[in-house]
Amino acid sequence: MWLHTIYVIAIVAEAMSGAIMGMRMGMDLFGLCVIGVVTALGGGTIRDAVLGHHPVGWVSHPEYLVFTVGASLLAAATARVLPRLRQAFLLADAAGLVAFSIIGCNIANSLALHPGIAVVSGMITGICGGVLRDILCNEVPLVLRREFYASVALIVGVLYIGLLSLGLEQDVAALITLVLGFILRLAAIRFRWRLPSFGGEKNIHSIH
Amino acid sequence: MWLHTIYVIAIVAEAMSGAIMGMRMGMDLFGLCVIGVVTALGGGTIRDAVLGHHPVGWVSHPEYLVFTVGASLLAAATARVLPRLRQAFLLADAAGLVAFSIIGCNIANSLALHPGIAVVSGMITGICGGVLRDILCNEVPLVLRREFYASVALIVGVLYIGLLSLGLEQDVAALITLVLGFILRLAAIRFRWRLPSFGGEKNIHSIH
Amino acid sequence: MWLHTIYVIAIVAEAMSGAIMGMRMGMDLFGLCVIGVVTALGGGTIRDAVLGHHPVGWVSHPEYLVFTVGASLLAAATARVLPRLRQAFLLADAAGLVAFSIIGCNIANSLALHPGIAVVSGMITGICGGVLRDILCNEVPLVLRREFYASVALIVGVLYIGLLSLGLEQDVAALITLVLGFILRLAAIRFRWRLPSFGGEKNIHSIH
Repeated sequence: MWLHTIYVIAIVAEAMSGAIMGMRMGMDLFGLCVIGVVTALGGGTIRDAVLGHHPVGWVSHPEYLVFTVGASLLAAATARVLPRLRQAFLLADAAGLVAFSIIGCNIANSLALHPGIAVVSGMITGICGGVLRDILCNEVPLVLRREFYASVALIVGVLYIGLLSLGLEQDVAALITLVLGFILRLAAIRFRWRLPSFGGEKNIHSIH
Repeated sequence: MWLHTIYVIAIVAEAMSGAIMGMRMGMDLFGLCVIGVVTALGGGTIRDAVLGHHPVGWVSHPEYLVFTVGASLLAAATARVLPRLRQAFLLADAAGLVAFSIIGCNIANSLALHPGIAVVSGMITGICGGVLRDILCNEVPLVLRREFYASVALIVGVLYIGLLSLGLEQDVAALITLVLGFILRLAAIRFRWRLPSFGGEKNIHSIH
Repeated sequence: MWLHTIYVIAIVAEAMSGAIMGMRMGMDLFGLCVIGVVTALGGGTIRDAVLGHHPVGWVSHPEYLVFTVGASLLAAATARVLPRLRQAFLLADAAGLVAFSIIGCNIANSLALHPGIAVVSGMITGICGGVLRDILCNEVPLVLRREFYASVALIVGVLYIGLLSLGLEQDVAALITLVLGFILRLAAIRFRWRLPSFGGEKNIHSIH
């Protein structure tokens, strides 16, 4: 199925971008493979552990581990030229974010969960890999700070669940969502859309 | 049930305090909602994933997500006045810590687990939300460092399980535990109780 | 069974080393017990939550919590002399890494999972406790950065699953793996084996 093809392309791209970040943090060959795998597969793993959806994706598809470890090693071998492919990675990452979110919605639907939970399941799938990557690299997660990124996962989930509830077939709804979500994410990058953030407001006092 | 009412008040207060911390870390509107939700619901989620208790609380009660997202947005809108309500938050947080712990014990009991595991289940529920918040904000978790806070979760769990084992009805045991635990936590704040900590002992050598 | 004995020795040693690290981070008595318990039991807990293997180890064996809390308190009481026992800890940690990995493989096999997943299950068991410890202490996980440590978990898993697939009995395969894995880890320490790492390559550009 075409959604699966996009998913595989996306986990390869995510693993490569995670491995690059691991290299920048001074990790060794093993560590950057871990970061690559976790970035690519961590979101789905958290989703499945939280929803009680077993076996987890990579447990029933061990080849995903091979793909993502291979992608991490490839990233290590080609680290000096990869940044020149930045545009390609942004495209793969944008498609991946949307594909991850749709797949997360599908998993929740297969468990007959509430539509709102399906949207959250999509968001967990879309953003938690990057959150885990940033925690392992000891950074405040990027997606929580300054990108119109996580919001795309939310909008994609609402759109997809909405289209399904209108009676569209899953394939058609997924295709429409993928195209619109992809355009939305690229527009967010191109026009530097951001949600309001609160970084400069040092006068906010803790209530702890 | 009154314990549920206290729980809802507590998750709202926890979400607001989490969102405030997210704002201080420079997160955007989406990020601070995530921090708010995770602070409020993360402890119960970890507990349920570890104990294999599905569906997780917010999956069967999606309204908890609405409450905590709403509380996070409210915190963002009122950030400048919230610190003046510090006293109210401390009270809500103290009641919440005790209510979370009691609820965690109840979940473990519903799974017929060992009484000691019920106490641990209460502690996970009470403190892991704050631990996740601090990890996402890239801080060493506050509750592990310098507050007589996590200890309250432990004492509350032991007291509650002890009262149940004496044959008290669940409601009576919960009420007694809530009152005593609440007083204990406020006394800990008032009199600045602390466990011994080891921060100054730089002469402790790693054994790694 | 002898593997269980080594496991118990290993969780005690891991808890003590985790508690020592918690003390160095300025944690209080409660916090260092949490770090000790998480370091010792966190890897198995993540493995079980991800694989859907319930009840988790310490839930069916609450005595593991007693052992690891006791070990953490003992470490706090003897912090000044412990570093002199560094050699003993390195030996216990090396045996523990191998025992953890073998046990993780066994759990996956008991769930009839793919051999490759069994190896990953062993690695999660062996290294995730230390990863959680470092996340809680706000450090980039040591095992991802500069030790031939995680690689031992990988090699041990491949060796053990390989021996089982050759038809050896579980006990024999475990014993051979334990001896060879132990020697491998000690050799890695003695001869300072490292995987290539990428710390100095500041000219690697992010592709985000």
